[in-house]
Amino acid sequence: MHLEAWALGSTLGSAMGWVLKVESVQHTGSFKPRGVFNLLLSRPTPSGVVTASGGNAAMAVAYACRQLRLPATVFVPRSAPPIKINRVAALGARIEVGGDYYAHAYAAAVEHAARTGDLFVHAYDGPEILAGQGTVARELEQQAPEVDTVLVAVGGGGLIGGICSWYGAGTRIVAVEPRHAPTLHAALQADRPVDVEVSGIAADSLGARRIGVHGLAAVRAAGALSVLVTDSDISAARQRLWDDARLVAESGGATALAALTSGAYRPAPDECVAVLLCGANTDPHDLVPRA
Amino acid sequence: MHLEAWALGSTLGSAMGWVLKVESVQHTGSFKPRGVFNLLLSRPTPSGVVTASGGNAAMAVAYACRQLRLPATVFVPRSAPPIKINRVAALGARIEVGGDYYAHAYAAAVEHAARTGDLFVHAYDGPEILAGQGTVARELEQQAPEVDTVLVAVGGGGLIGGICSWYGAGTRIVAVEPRHAPTLHAALQADRPVDVEVSGIAADSLGARRIGVHGLAAVRAAGALSVLVTDSDISAARQRLWDDARLVAESGGATALAALTSGAYRPAPDECVAVLLCGANTDPHDLVPRA
Repeated sequence: MHLEAWALGSTLGSAMGWVLKVESVQHTGSFKPRGVFNLLLSRPTPSGVVTASGGNAAMAVAYACRQLRLPATVFVPRSAPPIKINRVAALGARIEVGGDYYAHAYAAAVEHAARTGDLFVHAYDGPEILAGQGTVARELEQQAPEVDTVLVAVGGGGLIGGICSWYGAGTRIVAVEPRHAPTLHAALQADRPVDVEVSGIAADSLGARRIGVHGLAAVRAAGALSVLVTDSDISAARQRLWDDARLVAESGGATALAALTSGAYRPAPDECVAVLLCGANTDPHDLVPRA
Repeated sequence: MHLEAWALGSTLGSAMGWVLKVESVQHTGSFKPRGVFNLLLSRPTPSGVVTASGGNAAMAVAYACRQLRLPATVFVPRSAPPIKINRVAALGARIEVGGDYYAHAYAAAVEHAARTGDLFVHAYDGPEILAGQGTVARELEQQAPEVDTVLVAVGGGGLIGGICSWYGAGTRIVAVEPRHAPTLHAALQADRPVDVEVSGIAADSLGARRIGVHGLAAVRAAGALSVLVTDSDISAARQRLWDDARLVAESGGATALAALTSGAYRPAPDECVAVLLCGANTDPHDLVPRA
């Protein structure tokens, strides 16, 4: 049953004129289960699993553990949205509040793993996580071999790292981040992972403060471009997805598209562009209804 | 450009466990442009096009005519939702209010065609319309040859007629209608098209009062099953599409799924079922946000 996760999501030739890879219809509403399943199925079966996340990664861990019948513990920061915490709990994971900030929850999860022997699942970094997220690119290449360029939103670097690892330097990868969460952009400028301040409308999914080392290495090896978009670019792209393709994305899920619709990335006239819609864990009430 | 319409929509292996054919991401948010393009491209180029519709068919005609650079006139009943009329107008069609009810708008459109020589496009019946809608089934068969059973919502019978025409009797077709708009169900019982009263939450898209003769003939030839669902079945299916697959459908677009989620149609354990999501011209504000 859990292996279905790999087959989900589809390439949609959309009314928008770009190839859309719709990972928002994945189990738990984002691409995240790909990496989690790959990690869990690559290791000896653990007695339990622990992670730190208040968002999409937590849901993915809870879902994967439910499918694999493994006990899961999720450390969440006090700031995590109750609605996402409730969803994680509904998937059967045990919730522990691990301090005020994500760094506290992270430290508590690592400590828990050391104490109990539970397998620690990083929310976005590590070779198995990247390889799992990279299956998105493997599918996309099979489904749309004509693609020249792939636009991908970046949070902590797991998805972009997996995609860069699959395609390598032969396909143009454009890493898109909100100006208020420029985690990869800052790391590329500093030539190493650095902590950044994160805020803005996409911080609930793209708000990792520091890029993962594996993700950064893959991005540099592939020579991906890094572009930034504003919160209003993201809002406009999210609304346009609804208007023109009747698809709902969370703000982070619309961030890659925002690079196209804002002009932050301008493809050549004959360039075939694919856009990854990476998540839809959002409340659609604020989409303007246009029939 | 317009020929892209045929290639749109995709089969999604979904988190719900059924094959979903997602026509809601088509141009104009429903399958309707397929039939309209097929009709317009099958006939000598007309000087103008006219139809009667206050909903998805009107948008499809307006869109197809814009792409083909043909003037379009749409007769709408006074009861048509302003939001849909505005969208039709935004697509460049001329709007004429054709009386209080659909029957009046229909008569006015036919009269307009006779007077001007414009090509009359029926909102759901006729050989070219059915053949165009049937391309949904041709794609589905290519994308998911393992399908045993296809569930399809029925309004005026164009979509079900096209799908029955493609598959014939070799694949089980289940025609799903709201109890408050049982246009096909009543016709099958009476053994001929009969007028029915229509109301309920899906009447804006499935509210044709009388089944098309071509659609009915195709349904009978294929031996499709007819099942009915309640408005609350439809609401629950629409919410479940959002909860489990992050897809938005209008009520008519969720009606086929409602037959599965309500148990009105119960597949065998090993039966491979495809569900057609036929439209998403809806305001998503009432979907309950569950992360």
